Amino acid sequence: MRLVITGFGLLGGSIARAAKRAAAQQGSPLHITAIDPSRHVLKTAQDLGLADEYAANIEAIPPDSDWIILAAPVAVNQQILSQVIARAGARTRLTDVGSTKAHLTAKLEHDYPKFTRFIPAHPMAGREVSGPENSAETLFDDKLVILTPPKTANKDDIDAAARLYTSLGARILIMDDAQEHDRLMGYVSHLPHLLAFAFVNLAASRQNGDVDYQDLTGGGYRDFTRIAASDPVMWHDIFTENKDNILAQLDEFEHILKDYRRAIETGQSSALKAFINEARGERLRLHPGSKGQIL
Amino acid sequence: MRLVITGFGLLGGSIARAAKRAAAQQGSPLHITAIDPSRHVLKTAQDLGLADEYAANIEAIPPDSDWIILAAPVAVNQQILSQVIARAGARTRLTDVGSTKAHLTAKLEHDYPKFTRFIPAHPMAGREVSGPENSAETLFDDKLVILTPPKTANKDDIDAAARLYTSLGARILIMDDAQEHDRLMGYVSHLPHLLAFAFVNLAASRQNGDVDYQDLTGGGYRDFTRIAASDPVMWHDIFTENKDNILAQLDEFEHILKDYRRAIETGQSSALKAFINEARGERLRLHPGSKGQIL
Repeated sequence: MRLVITGFGLLGGSIARAAKRAAAQQGSPLHITAIDPSRHVLKTAQDLGLADEYAANIEAIPPDSDWIILAAPVAVNQQILSQVIARAGARTRLTDVGSTKAHLTAKLEHDYPKFTRFIPAHPMAGREVSGPENSAETLFDDKLVILTPPKTANKDDIDAAARLYTSLGARILIMDDAQEHDRLMGYVSHLPHLLAFAFVNLAASRQNGDVDYQDLTGGGYRDFTRIAASDPVMWHDIFTENKDNILAQLDEFEHILKDYRRAIETGQSSALKAFINEARGERLRLHPGSKGQIL
Repeated sequence: MRLVITGFGLLGGSIARAAKRAAAQQGSPLHITAIDPSRHVLKTAQDLGLADEYAANIEAIPPDSDWIILAAPVAVNQQILSQVIARAGARTRLTDVGSTKAHLTAKLEHDYPKFTRFIPAHPMAGREVSGPENSAETLFDDKLVILTPPKTANKDDIDAAARLYTSLGARILIMDDAQEHDRLMGYVSHLPHLLAFAFVNLAASRQNGDVDYQDLTGGGYRDFTRIAASDPVMWHDIFTENKDNILAQLDEFEHILKDYRRAIETGQSSALKAFINEARGERLRLHPGSKGQIL
């Protein structure tokens, strides 16, 4: 298999490592072309021997590649899309590994209605650290990869994408609607990250010099700071790409906060208990028998 | 030592178990009186052999007790305070294990300015489950117990309280100001719990029937639901007791959310990245070298 990876950071490097592991297990040939505009990134990848070819320019994509995987930040993937599609050969399939899917899919369907071999993917895997030096062959093991094939995609290409990510160690979930993907990810990931960032901003600005919050951590605080330990550029891009969903969901969240505020302010005990009970019920539904920690 | 525990739930039962462990290790005598208005609770505690005496009424407190530990919900502890102080003998010390400290301390200083042997405590330990049947002798091991001695407290009594909780397995932090305790706990525990409850309320109400959020969990969502899995009555009491701090901190939080919203809405990339970076910096300051998980 001839694999091209554009953007050779943590994800790109981990894809290369996991693909090598799969090829070694299957005894099948593999050739990887790593493309990245950063000379430093290419040098690091080369020192680690992560690929077979290294290039700074998209023109280096060989026309007989089997897969081109867009693994740069989401905005960059969109910028280079036309150049990449121009380099796709007769048998070349495309995929990307960005966290948001609606804009890219819309661009694809609008600008390239006849190019049907692009299967967008969102691997729910990552680490706080970045760069090929932090890549790992196990990064995708047992992680979910969500495929959001456009309406024009063929079953063959969807199956091939599922096989590709399965070979990297992942489990596959197919969602037919890229917009629904982004809406759902807003709820389960983007909104809680936004809340965690904002909460940690607040807590950091209100430290009491005499008492280290670190020593008081337990329950809520530790979880919130853990969530907040994520890549600023990546999250900036996610908040920007998924802006409409996130702002709408933030509105909904603030309405619920208002309900809590009113119940606390006016001493509506039964309403307040009902709100808390409902949240607790959801947790128990998701994780029957789970044990939480309270303070 | 003669120990009286009023309110014999998870915390009361765990104090009894940990005290028995300490007495056995030191070979010192121990007599525990368990007081709880619930016949069912007393029966459970008796079946488990957690105490030496069981009573439904505060009148059963022996006048020669060394410690009376208030371990009922915070509001109940305040209701029974006068009766308990009336039963305190010449050498009896008092403490409580509630999560909020300002109201109780204010009541103590206002109503009983001459009773100086009450050392309020907040053990930062707990579990999702409740009742003496879920108590554990290890509940306080390596957990922080915050003591908030009133201004009139003597060093002897503070030291004795520190020894008591240390014997249960805990580490001690002394905070001179009960109001400051409640303000800090608002930031590190109460506010994040409130946000987690509200978030899970929102996410639960917006489920897509076709896709189970549970399968999409990773990063934010799991942490939020974990936090939300806490006792509704206890959290109702905390939100009510610490209402002023929580509402003020909620205001501050909503101001920060507005900053994020404005930066996302108007595409202020550098401001947005700066906000995220600041939150990330706080995490790294607290946990150098920590690794988070991103989506």
